[in-house]
Amino acid sequence: MKTSQRGQVDPFIVMDVMEAARKAEAAGRRIIHMEVGQPATPAPKGARQALARTLEQPLGYTVALGLPALRQGIAALYQRWYGVDLDPARVVVTPGSSGAFILAFSALFDAGDRVALGEPGYPSYRQILRAMSLEPVGIPTRIEDRYQPRPEDLPGDVQGLILASPGNPSGTVLRREELAALTTRAAALGVSVISDEIYHGLDYGAGFHSALEVTDDVVVINSFSKYFSMTGWRIGWMVVPEPMIRTVERIAQNMFICPPHASQVAALAALDCVDEAEANLAVYAANRQMLLERLPQIGFDRIAPPEGAFYIYADVSELTDDSLSFAAEILEKAGVAVTPGLDFDPRRGARTLRFSYAGASADIAEGLDRLAAFMAAR
Amino acid sequence: MKTSQRGQVDPFIVMDVMEAARKAEAAGRRIIHMEVGQPATPAPKGARQALARTLEQPLGYTVALGLPALRQGIAALYQRWYGVDLDPARVVVTPGSSGAFILAFSALFDAGDRVALGEPGYPSYRQILRAMSLEPVGIPTRIEDRYQPRPEDLPGDVQGLILASPGNPSGTVLRREELAALTTRAAALGVSVISDEIYHGLDYGAGFHSALEVTDDVVVINSFSKYFSMTGWRIGWMVVPEPMIRTVERIAQNMFICPPHASQVAALAALDCVDEAEANLAVYAANRQMLLERLPQIGFDRIAPPEGAFYIYADVSELTDDSLSFAAEILEKAGVAVTPGLDFDPRRGARTLRFSYAGASADIAEGLDRLAAFMAAR
Ligand SMILES: Cc1ncc(COP(=O)(O)O)c(C=O)c1O
Ligand SMILES: Cc1ncc(COP(=O)(O)O)c(C=O)c1O
Repeated sequence: MKTSQRGQVDPFIVMDVMEAARKAEAAGRRIIHMEVGQPATPAPKGARQALARTLEQPLGYTVALGLPALRQGIAALYQRWYGVDLDPARVVVTPGSSGAFILAFSALFDAGDRVALGEPGYPSYRQILRAMSLEPVGIPTRIEDRYQPRPEDLPGDVQGLILASPGNPSGTVLRREELAALTTRAAALGVSVISDEIYHGLDYGAGFHSALEVTDDVVVINSFSKYFSMTGWRIGWMVVPEPMIRTVERIAQNMFICPPHASQVAALAALDCVDEAEANLAVYAANRQMLLERLPQIGFDRIAPPEGAFYIYADVSELTDDSLSFAAEILEKAGVAVTPGLDFDPRRGARTLRFSYAGASADIAEGLDRLAAFMAAR
Repeated sequence: MKTSQRGQVDPFIVMDVMEAARKAEAAGRRIIHMEVGQPATPAPKGARQALARTLEQPLGYTVALGLPALRQGIAALYQRWYGVDLDPARVVVTPGSSGAFILAFSALFDAGDRVALGEPGYPSYRQILRAMSLEPVGIPTRIEDRYQPRPEDLPGDVQGLILASPGNPSGTVLRREELAALTTRAAALGVSVISDEIYHGLDYGAGFHSALEVTDDVVVINSFSKYFSMTGWRIGWMVVPEPMIRTVERIAQNMFICPPHASQVAALAALDCVDEAEANLAVYAANRQMLLERLPQIGFDRIAPPEGAFYIYADVSELTDDSLSFAAEILEKAGVAVTPGLDFDPRRGARTLRFSYAGASADIAEGLDRLAAFMAAR
C-alpha cells in the first residue's frame, strides 16, 4: 500500500531535541526542560475527585456536542472572563483543541482552499491543514508588531485565517482593537476566521480578549490543556456561529462520536477550580519574571514581549543561523533543552529559539544558571 | 462565514429515534432500548481501579503513538487471539477507532480518491470519507453472502476498500479464506485495505479472524469500545504496515497530539480483565439466543446470521418500504426503540431494521414481548 501525498507532513523538530534529552537522561545526565509546552502540574484536584466519584458509573458515549452541563459551564466562563453573554448551544466540546481544528477545517474549507496564518506560529496548524488537503499560507510577521499579523497582511486569495492570541511561540496578545481590525478586514474579503485562544487565562497584566467580544462571525477555539492543566485529558472546545452548529454536530458525530466522557466529567469540575489554576499561574509569573530579568543579561535580548502563555521567543540571529545545531549545542554543553524556532517558522526559524517556562521555578532558575555559564564560555 | 461542501454530511437517522425515545421517557413512558450500539456496562473494574491509582500523577501528553506498555499489551493480544506475532512498533493507539479512521484515511488517500465499502455498513465510514474530501463507493451486498462483499464486487477504479467483520449492522463474520480472497484481489488492483475489527471478541461460535492472519499489507482497526466495554473512553488502535509507521506517527502528532492519557492507563489494565469481558459476552450470548428464537416467531424471519457483535439485521421488506416510519410506529405503539436500516444502507435500508442486543437480558425479554404484542395487533 502506498501512502498519500497529504500524509507527508513535516516532523516536529522539537521531537529530536526531546529524544536527545531522553538519551542524555538515560545516560545519567540531569537535563533542564525548557522545551516542553505543557504544565508539569496534574489536573486540578477537584477535577480528579469528581472523576473518582464517577468511576462506578458506565461512562458511555455522550452526545456529540458534549455534556449539556459542561457546555453551560463553558458558556458561563465567557461571562466571567469577557462579560460576553454566550448561548451554550454554540459551545461544542471537542477532543482537545486539536480536535476542534479538525472539526473547524472540515466545516469551513474544501480541498484546495488556502488558509493564512502568522509566522511564527503553532506548527500543527500547518500540518493539520496539509493532512486535510488544505494549503497553509504563511504571513511573515514582525517583532515590532509583537509577531502578530496586520490587517493589510491578509492575502486576498485565501478562504481562511487563523489568529492566535496569546500566540505560541511568541506569547504575544492581540489587543481588542487589533482583533476588531483583523476580523473586519477578513469579513470584507469573505475570509473565515478561526481564533485560537487556548492560552487564555495565562496572562501577566496585558489582559486578553476573545474574538467573540468583537464579532459573532468567528470560530473560537479553546482548551482545558493549559490554564486548567489538563493536556493529556484531550478536552477542549469551540464556539461556532449559530448557523454552523448543525453542520459541526454532524461532523462531530461521525468523526469523533463524542469527546472522552471521563475528561468531560473532570473538565466540568475543573471550571470551579480557580484557586488551583491561579496558583499555577503564579508560578509561571515568577518564572517569567526570572527569564525577563536574566535572559537579556545572558545574551538573549531580542525577545517578543511575553504577554501570555508560558513561552519566550528569542531572535538569536546574532548568535547563529542554525537554530537546530545551536539548540543541540545548548543541550549538549549546558544540559538545557530548548526548542529551535524552525518548528514555528519554516522561513526564519533557523535564527530563533523558544524557551518554555511551564516548569518548576527551581528548574527554571537552574536552567538560567546553566545558560549563563554556557554563554559566558562561548 | 459559509460552510464547506465536504462539511455537508448526512445526519444519523437513529438520532431522531433516540430523540423521540427521550421525549417519550420525559413524558413518563418506559422505553426498551434496542437501538443503541454500546454496552450498558462500565469499563472493567480493574481498568477503573488502575486509573483511580494513577489520578495523583500529572497525566500529561503521552507520545503520539501511545504508551509503550499499552502498545506491547495490544501486540500480545494478537498472539492470544490469532496466534499472530506482531511487532508492537506497528501498533498505534488512537482516540477510539474513529480516530484511527481519520489517521488511516489521511495517510492513505488524497482528496478525490474513491473508497469502496459494503452496504449495509457503519454509516460513519461514509461520512468521515466525505468530510475528508474522499468519495465513498457503496458495494451492495447480498443476504446470501451474509451481507459481505465478494472479491469480484470490488470496483477497478477505487483506491481503498473498507472491510468490517463482524459487520455493523449485520453481525456477520468474514471467514479466513474470504479475508484472503478479498485482500488478494485488492492487492492485485492496487487497492489499500482497511479492516475494521472492532467487534472482535464478541463471537458466538463462528470464531473471528484478523486480516493480519492473511497479509501484513493492511491497516487493521480495533477499539476498546465494545469487547472491553469502554465506548466513552475514546480509546482504540490500529496496526499499520511497517513502512507506514513514520507517516502515521507524524499525522497523529499533529492531528491528535496523543490519545487520552487516562484512557490509555485504563485500557492497559483492561487487557487483563478477561473474566469481566467474558461475563459481558455471556449476557450478549443469552440475549442473542432469545432473539434468534423469538424474532422469527414474531414475524422478523429474514435475518443475516448474527455471528458476532451485538446486532441482528432484519429484512422487513414484506412489512414495509419505509423503515423510518416503521421504526417510529414501533416506538410509538410498542415502546421499543429500534434503528431503521437507512443509516446503514442508503439504497435498500428503507426495507430493513437493526435490533441491538447489548442491553440487559430482562430488557431484551420485555422488548420481545412488546414486539410480539405489537406485531400480533398489526
Ligand atoms: C497554540 C496552540 N494551539 C493548540 C494546541 C493544541 O492543544 P490541545 O489539543 O491540547 O488543546 C497547542 C498545544 O501546544 C498550542 O500551543
Ligand atoms: C463498525 C464500527 N466501527 C467503528 C465504530 C466506532 O467506534 P469507536 O470510535 O468507539 O472505537 C463503531 C461504533 O459503533 C462501529 O460500529
